[in-house]
Amino acid sequence: MKISIDVTMRYAFRQANTVTLAIEAAQTHGQRVLSESLDIPGAQIDRIGGDSGVGSKLFARVPEGEMALRYGAEVEISRPDPSLERMAAAPLHRLTSDALQYIRPSRYCQSDKFVSFVGARFSHLEGGTKVAAIRNWIEAKLSYVPGSSDADTNVLETFAGRQGVCRDYAHLFCSMARAAQIPARMVSAYGPDVAPSDFHAVAQVWLDGDWHLVDATGMCRANGLAVVAVGRDAYDVAFMESQAPAELLEQVVTVNRIG
Amino acid sequence: MKISIDVTMRYAFRQANTVTLAIEAAQTHGQRVLSESLDIPGAQIDRIGGDSGVGSKLFARVPEGEMALRYGAEVEISRPDPSLERMAAAPLHRLTSDALQYIRPSRYCQSDKFVSFVGARFSHLEGGTKVAAIRNWIEAKLSYVPGSSDADTNVLETFAGRQGVCRDYAHLFCSMARAAQIPARMVSAYGPDVAPSDFHAVAQVWLDGDWHLVDATGMCRANGLAVVAVGRDAYDVAFMESQAPAELLEQVVTVNRIG
Amino acid sequence: MKISIDVTMRYAFRQANTVTLAIEAAQTHGQRVLSESLDIPGAQIDRIGGDSGVGSKLFARVPEGEMALRYGAEVEISRPDPSLERMAAAPLHRLTSDALQYIRPSRYCQSDKFVSFVGARFSHLEGGTKVAAIRNWIEAKLSYVPGSSDADTNVLETFAGRQGVCRDYAHLFCSMARAAQIPARMVSAYGPDVAPSDFHAVAQVWLDGDWHLVDATGMCRANGLAVVAVGRDAYDVAFMESQAPAELLEQVVTVNRIG
Amino acid sequence: MKISIDVTMRYAFRQANTVTLAIEAAQTHGQRVLSESLDIPGAQIDRIGGDSGVGSKLFARVPEGEMALRYGAEVEISRPDPSLERMAAAPLHRLTSDALQYIRPSRYCQSDKFVSFVGARFSHLEGGTKVAAIRNWIEAKLSYVPGSSDADTNVLETFAGRQGVCRDYAHLFCSMARAAQIPARMVSAYGPDVAPSDFHAVAQVWLDGDWHLVDATGMCRANGLAVVAVGRDAYDVAFMESQAPAELLEQVVTVNRIG
Repeated sequence: MKISIDVTMRYAFRQANTVTLAIEAAQTHGQRVLSESLDIPGAQIDRIGGDSGVGSKLFARVPEGEMALRYGAEVEISRPDPSLERMAAAPLHRLTSDALQYIRPSRYCQSDKFVSFVGARFSHLEGGTKVAAIRNWIEAKLSYVPGSSDADTNVLETFAGRQGVCRDYAHLFCSMARAAQIPARMVSAYGPDVAPSDFHAVAQVWLDGDWHLVDATGMCRANGLAVVAVGRDAYDVAFMESQAPAELLEQVVTVNRIG
Repeated sequence: MKISIDVTMRYAFRQANTVTLAIEAAQTHGQRVLSESLDIPGAQIDRIGGDSGVGSKLFARVPEGEMALRYGAEVEISRPDPSLERMAAAPLHRLTSDALQYIRPSRYCQSDKFVSFVGARFSHLEGGTKVAAIRNWIEAKLSYVPGSSDADTNVLETFAGRQGVCRDYAHLFCSMARAAQIPARMVSAYGPDVAPSDFHAVAQVWLDGDWHLVDATGMCRANGLAVVAVGRDAYDVAFMESQAPAELLEQVVTVNRIG
Repeated sequence: MKISIDVTMRYAFRQANTVTLAIEAAQTHGQRVLSESLDIPGAQIDRIGGDSGVGSKLFARVPEGEMALRYGAEVEISRPDPSLERMAAAPLHRLTSDALQYIRPSRYCQSDKFVSFVGARFSHLEGGTKVAAIRNWIEAKLSYVPGSSDADTNVLETFAGRQGVCRDYAHLFCSMARAAQIPARMVSAYGPDVAPSDFHAVAQVWLDGDWHLVDATGMCRANGLAVVAVGRDAYDVAFMESQAPAELLEQVVTVNRIG
Repeated sequence: MKISIDVTMRYAFRQANTVTLAIEAAQTHGQRVLSESLDIPGAQIDRIGGDSGVGSKLFARVPEGEMALRYGAEVEISRPDPSLERMAAAPLHRLTSDALQYIRPSRYCQSDKFVSFVGARFSHLEGGTKVAAIRNWIEAKLSYVPGSSDADTNVLETFAGRQGVCRDYAHLFCSMARAAQIPARMVSAYGPDVAPSDFHAVAQVWLDGDWHLVDATGMCRANGLAVVAVGRDAYDVAFMESQAPAELLEQVVTVNRIG
């Protein structure tokens, strides 16, 4: 699938500061960035590699006043949809150093609290079959309710409240997979099927020696997602962070199928 | 049912201090204390009424060293087992001032976090039928695992972990009932069916204009429980609290059917 | 001091529901309601006593659509400003049953977590001197920053973040006083010195056998506050709660010195 | 400084399982492992690199029954004590990809909650001077109290309670440094000055383009510490984790200066 991405963001800052951005589609396994452009008038931009070597983080040093950002890209996505049920989880002693960090709890994902629930509820299943069952459980049990969570909501609250938005679905998926000792990480992404159109958050799970995309909201398929960044949870993949207080003026994300 | 209660507690204190106790069977609706004795050698004892007028709290001023407590009682329990399913919940505007406080969250019971889950999962039910369904859900979903929680465990952790001891069952029951706007409070009690024999924690729910005992662990029936104290959660009904560090030397609770 | 209170609230509800209100100045120790009027067109109103017998809660059953509320009152306040430093805290065994509940933790006030800090930091002080030191510490250490907290903010977050609004100041004061085993409760109130004009939250502390108003923000003095409701924390004294989702249309609180 | 390390651990497992260990002194900057030996009779051992390329994690597949582990090493430590006050913090846009992850919150370190406190309290300081002031503040304000925390204690609780053990000191240091946007990570280590002798936890802070050891407890100096593992918080550097329930039978850590 080929998609076009177009992002417009405008923020007002009361002082010069450094803005950290993770908004560019990554050159990574299963997708190819055919063309892209980034324009932030007046900003000085530095770029470093993203977590686990996926994508990049940008530091934009911007003056006081308004920051207007425009990002555009065309991305070809070639990854197949994973057949989770046919995949195997690695035993602990076969995990890579990078994958190992993603079985541990994080700021929003207190996966340690779910060990007994996941152990009991999915005890009869193994590997990808267990992962698929966890994903299906989350999609069935949670309701997608815009505004039902905020940047401070953790996964214990999501589990009790049984509602959330994409980040909460992904957090719960990561937490429950980690509780089963299967590495799972947070992924920010663009997808043409995200409705209403916005930045999207999904997960990747480590099966058969590779990472596979899982969208517990059911909105997007793996071949309909352009990965931006990965990390332990929402904090690691935030599309924008500002050192100084920021006032949002405008933010439009448009993603379309093309060709 | 007539029961005998016998409690032996020994603690060592490094300094003189005041110990707050809630261990006496209450003279309250549905039960009658036929005889009782309390002996704490060397202690000066003051007594005030318990929360919501149920039972009493004791303040025992004890010297440094060992406190040996002996409490014995015979209690006749005459309350019937409630047929929750046939009872009605009061609309909000018919609640009493005392009952109203028990629909609110507390230290361990963040009932506000369960509103959407309870709203969705039990939406088709009303009043006592909803209460019974909540109780049954908890008994079915939680596992009773001694040592799986501690004094700091809150109900979000219990809900995620799906295991606990009597206090956790009662906390979750109170939280879910409150989320449905049905008053529910924590109750400490003695019962001959508690195994292994110990202080027990259950709940009371406000239906048909009165409080009714509910044991979400399934261990005890309402007519097999002698109420000691009530409150918002475990903090309010603690059987023993000490100002100074206390070392537990011995604690034996024996409860038997008699007559 | 004599004050006039004028409250206008307008909310839109998508369905008929019961709204719980705690907005009327209480007939209570140290203040006298000279005249008052409440008008909620179309609502059926029930009234019960507030927590600890202070003030009252109203249940307004309102139809779908807009609720327009108007409350006006004149209140004479005669309580003196407390000289906290000259007052004594009661030993535990002299507390009343009602006061005792206010040394325990609550939903937002995890006072149990502050025992060692308060014990060490204020160990050289006793009774009212300790209370005054705690109040002064909070006023000195916290910054009043509108928008820095929300309805979910608890006192551990306030203590770490060192900023908040009136509810957060009152929560921290209650938590630290309780950690010192001095009863402290949340109070909602009106005051002409609240700036910008709004509902206000302060605390009451139990010294010399009575409750005394303490405003840790430093905005108001005890004789410049008309008490509305008391409770364990913000949940117990919420001025308005709705069963159904509510959209705020307008809210204006005007309080003036008169006469 | 040259030190010898000797660790004896014995655990009983009810079933065969994989134990993850991080107990070997790392071959890393500022220290050289002169000799080492590891013996776990009956175990199959796999080894992968530790977080951020420091040290290694071991997976020991052990049979049901008792696991007896013996680890010994001699390590030469050559790193100087850092003069934090003379060092500079990197601006955000000069951080490396690896360092960047260590300014973010983690499971136990909700550093986002400390931004306003750290911003206000240490606003007059920069870089290493700020780091030193944070370290000194923590050592001055916290009390080292064995048993005052457990594996579930997070940094909000530590900050409120003002006491803890080495992991809590390190967590608070990491949280406050991160809140100042200075990368800080958790470090497990051995040191001859740890009293009573045990595994130790300290922190590393990123200044002048390198990591520098900081022990907020004041027990150890940088040249008296042999680093084992690094990570975001205690979860990432746990010296031992077991899939199955484990019963501790014996654990002795002996570290001495030699030569």
